[in-house]
Amino acid sequence: MERDSALQIIQSQLPEKRYIHTVGVLETAVLLAEKYKVEREKIELAAIFHDYAKYRPIAEMKLIVSEQKMSDKLLSYGSELLHAPVGAYLVQKEVGIDDEDVLDGIRYHTTGRANMTLLEKIIYISDYIEPNRSFKGVEEVRKLAEKDLDQALITAISNTIQFLVKKRQPVFPDTLAAYNHLILKEEF
Amino acid sequence: MERDSALQIIQSQLPEKRYIHTVGVLETAVLLAEKYKVEREKIELAAIFHDYAKYRPIAEMKLIVSEQKMSDKLLSYGSELLHAPVGAYLVQKEVGIDDEDVLDGIRYHTTGRANMTLLEKIIYISDYIEPNRSFKGVEEVRKLAEKDLDQALITAISNTIQFLVKKRQPVFPDTLAAYNHLILKEEF
Repeated sequence: MERDSALQIIQSQLPEKRYIHTVGVLETAVLLAEKYKVEREKIELAAIFHDYAKYRPIAEMKLIVSEQKMSDKLLSYGSELLHAPVGAYLVQKEVGIDDEDVLDGIRYHTTGRANMTLLEKIIYISDYIEPNRSFKGVEEVRKLAEKDLDQALITAISNTIQFLVKKRQPVFPDTLAAYNHLILKEEF
Repeated sequence: MERDSALQIIQSQLPEKRYIHTVGVLETAVLLAEKYKVEREKIELAAIFHDYAKYRPIAEMKLIVSEQKMSDKLLSYGSELLHAPVGAYLVQKEVGIDDEDVLDGIRYHTTGRANMTLLEKIIYISDYIEPNRSFKGVEEVRKLAEKDLDQALITAISNTIQFLVKKRQPVFPDTLAAYNHLILKEEF
């Protein structure tokens, strides 16, 4: 699929602000994909469509999780997580993208998971550091992403876990699994 | 088993400082068990023997984890976690305590787990707040334990997760499961 057609499709699914965010993710992901050698067309599609389901009604997303027999756990951790796995499903069904690498990039862009692919890591990090982001800690992750993608990921996920735990929010187990996998690979 | 015989056995297994800690855990746990209605003999045995394996050689503990077919994961998260499940095994084998409630109190005192029993919660918290403890945050958990054991537990585990993640240490999945279980029970 052409980049411009993909952008037209996503523009129809998202409000202006989220579309601008998506273009930011796309630009960041393309730069990282060049640096870390990930196929350009795949990274473009994953970046463009990562938030495809973001504005679907929560009830619709929950129904898809149940009907498609996705992990029940997705229904217990707050609705913010749903758009990633549901997005992967809908991008395949409605947009017709079948590439599993691209779909996994969409599927795991919010939670991460143990043993992430390079493409998944780049989408996760690009979503975190794209130029419109301005929260505490983002600059450190931007710098790390220039030289060591795993270090950037460890820092981003570590920030996220601390943020959630401080606010007494649940942490999806896959997010801890992503963190532990990177830490244990490195230190033990 | 009599409390005094149990204390004699544990004194033979631990250096002086750790024995003093154990007596602190025992005193704290007995008070909490009165407040929250847990059987006194069980809480005493779990408190007295919670660190039974703490000074066993790491190689011996790893061997027991393998031979007794405990979770392989225990071998990947640093040796600090081993003494709890290995302690439960050795207290049964060497001391002859067969009460599963007591053994679970020992088994999960370091990591916690989802759906902890009242006895497990009291041992976990007593280990955290006994009078010889003086780290940052301990006073808040002491106060919480007076009125709401789950809130004390959420705060203690939340502090532990943040401490580990800040130091880029792995977090055992059961610890997050304990946290998530308490948070999700409360908020969703």
